[in-house]
Amino acid sequence: MASPKPKNIIPVELGERTYEIYVGDNLLSNAGSLIAPFVRSKRLIVITDENVADSHLSTLRNALKSGEYETDEIVLKAGEQTKSFRDFMRLTDRILALRPERSTCLLALGGGVIGDLTGFAASTLLRGLDYIQLPTTLMSQVDSSIGGKTGINTRHGKNLIGSFHQPRLVVADTRTLGTLPKREFLSGYSEIVKYGLIRNPKFFKWLERNGKDVVTEDIDLATEAITVSCRTKAEIIAEDELEQGDRALLNLGHTFGHALEIETGFSSDLLHGEAVSIGMVMALDLSVKMGLCPNADAARLRRHLSEVGLPVGIDLLKGIKWNSERLLQRMTQDKKTKNGIINFILLKGIGRAFVCQDVKLPDVKSIFDKALNN
Amino acid sequence: MASPKPKNIIPVELGERTYEIYVGDNLLSNAGSLIAPFVRSKRLIVITDENVADSHLSTLRNALKSGEYETDEIVLKAGEQTKSFRDFMRLTDRILALRPERSTCLLALGGGVIGDLTGFAASTLLRGLDYIQLPTTLMSQVDSSIGGKTGINTRHGKNLIGSFHQPRLVVADTRTLGTLPKREFLSGYSEIVKYGLIRNPKFFKWLERNGKDVVTEDIDLATEAITVSCRTKAEIIAEDELEQGDRALLNLGHTFGHALEIETGFSSDLLHGEAVSIGMVMALDLSVKMGLCPNADAARLRRHLSEVGLPVGIDLLKGIKWNSERLLQRMTQDKKTKNGIINFILLKGIGRAFVCQDVKLPDVKSIFDKALNN
Repeated sequence: MASPKPKNIIPVELGERTYEIYVGDNLLSNAGSLIAPFVRSKRLIVITDENVADSHLSTLRNALKSGEYETDEIVLKAGEQTKSFRDFMRLTDRILALRPERSTCLLALGGGVIGDLTGFAASTLLRGLDYIQLPTTLMSQVDSSIGGKTGINTRHGKNLIGSFHQPRLVVADTRTLGTLPKREFLSGYSEIVKYGLIRNPKFFKWLERNGKDVVTEDIDLATEAITVSCRTKAEIIAEDELEQGDRALLNLGHTFGHALEIETGFSSDLLHGEAVSIGMVMALDLSVKMGLCPNADAARLRRHLSEVGLPVGIDLLKGIKWNSERLLQRMTQDKKTKNGIINFILLKGIGRAFVCQDVKLPDVKSIFDKALNN
Repeated sequence: MASPKPKNIIPVELGERTYEIYVGDNLLSNAGSLIAPFVRSKRLIVITDENVADSHLSTLRNALKSGEYETDEIVLKAGEQTKSFRDFMRLTDRILALRPERSTCLLALGGGVIGDLTGFAASTLLRGLDYIQLPTTLMSQVDSSIGGKTGINTRHGKNLIGSFHQPRLVVADTRTLGTLPKREFLSGYSEIVKYGLIRNPKFFKWLERNGKDVVTEDIDLATEAITVSCRTKAEIIAEDELEQGDRALLNLGHTFGHALEIETGFSSDLLHGEAVSIGMVMALDLSVKMGLCPNADAARLRRHLSEVGLPVGIDLLKGIKWNSERLLQRMTQDKKTKNGIINFILLKGIGRAFVCQDVKLPDVKSIFDKALNN
């Protein structure tokens, strides 16, 4: 069986934990041969959710038949609520009932929830199993499947329990994006924009030219955008695997966005990428307010996000009674605090993100106030 | 505040995860200054159980007062059942309610259950907190507090969910052993014997001379035995942190012992160290049966264990209906299988343990049969 390696291969350089991200069309159909060099035995356990199973499980199943794998499948309910402690307990219980060995490999077929949950299960079962990410959403292809952050949600917040556990391989099959609802696709696009903002001004310009075609799913342009995004994230991860420094830059827009998501109860009223989109605008507004960044850059971001159809302000969410004081409180609940200080990711301009530790909370509040009165 | 470092310091050499084991008298009273170089902030959370709290928590509390720490305490119920998934969930919930930061350090004050549970909580909270082991039992001082194996029990078996997460420091205060019931102390002693058997024949001889005084708690001899044990374990861990090779030698007596423990439901009918004691005898009997080891060595082990008061056969456990077939099945449920093969740790003689992968199951059964008919 010849291995049909995709043309876009992005390495994540982490010493003995180094792995590659494959990006390309129709990769899932060749999963059997693509994963072969990275599994230590023929025992596989596929973990997916009901929605993804309907669309893609049979493709994967057929692909694995050719490899003489001994495969079990676990299909979970779809949705963010699946990332709870109880679901984690149930998932690990089901996996243990299958009597895995240390060489057994888990395959995460799905979006961020499936990837995070499977990764956490892999990191803790028998004190560490291998796993492979098969992301099927744009959000997971450009962000959550890369970098080894795994975790579950608790009543105290999202991802407060988890681990750093790198996958053995990431296979991003762009064909799976065809079944993704338009709004989900757009949500993932906001993370793509984020990479341009953080450290790739050329890519941001490219997105200004091509973004509208990416979001209408021109497959070649989307593949290019995904590949550049993966490469940018891989570089940052390689520099700082455990988020002791620059990896925090990936939280651009997330601290603001997280506060919004708490208020909307992480419901479908506001998708993660939508919150990040608004959060990035807020981060730039704050950067401008603090005299760090030209106003023109904030305007460029607003324009681009609006053009592709992403939200730039919370005025869109009519049903929610926003309160800037409470939003401020929400931010201090985030786990990314250190001695009580919130790390903000701000910009000196497009492509020039940095970690800022001396943000004045009244300035943050005024950003919320501005957003609320828009 | 001068740091009263103990005279016995054993390094565990693991690159950037290197840490030390302190062994000595009255260390808990100086915990504040001993841990100071190893904590990243003043935020500490002490985790212990009711029994240990009664005996030692006030000592630790007073010791920490001098260091201007901001300390919270969580006191759990005592016992192995505390290592369940639900207890883990409750513990992490209680810790999260205290709003830990990434620089917060957990202190595990207690035996193996507290150490394993706290270590696992530390490894998963905020994707990894620091923790320090303050073992108060002989078993945890010579074994479970060292090497970073953390975990919880599930209905499928013990420690099937967990991680490798090294502590920042281990402080083994021999004074805490004074409150330990005699039988618990003896149980820990079997792990000490194990180190001699694995790779330290000189130490085994020393134990043959001094073991009876160690178990009657001659504090100087006990300190010496603990120190040598820690050094032996530290060497093995340094060679193979993630148990891909020689670390498996530490399972000597454990594969047999584990089967016995499953049968007794991990109850106080058979303590872990007692199971290991019997298991080591069985491992030597199997080594003799396979022509690998002189019978005289098995006899020496039997004699020494009997002399100090440890069990060498299951005839002592009258209430249980043993069945060698079922015991055999139990062994194959252990997580340390690879492609269905059980790794046995056998001996070519005292001090010469090795991993054996071609043990015939009928030979194993005959060892059980022999033990049952004794």
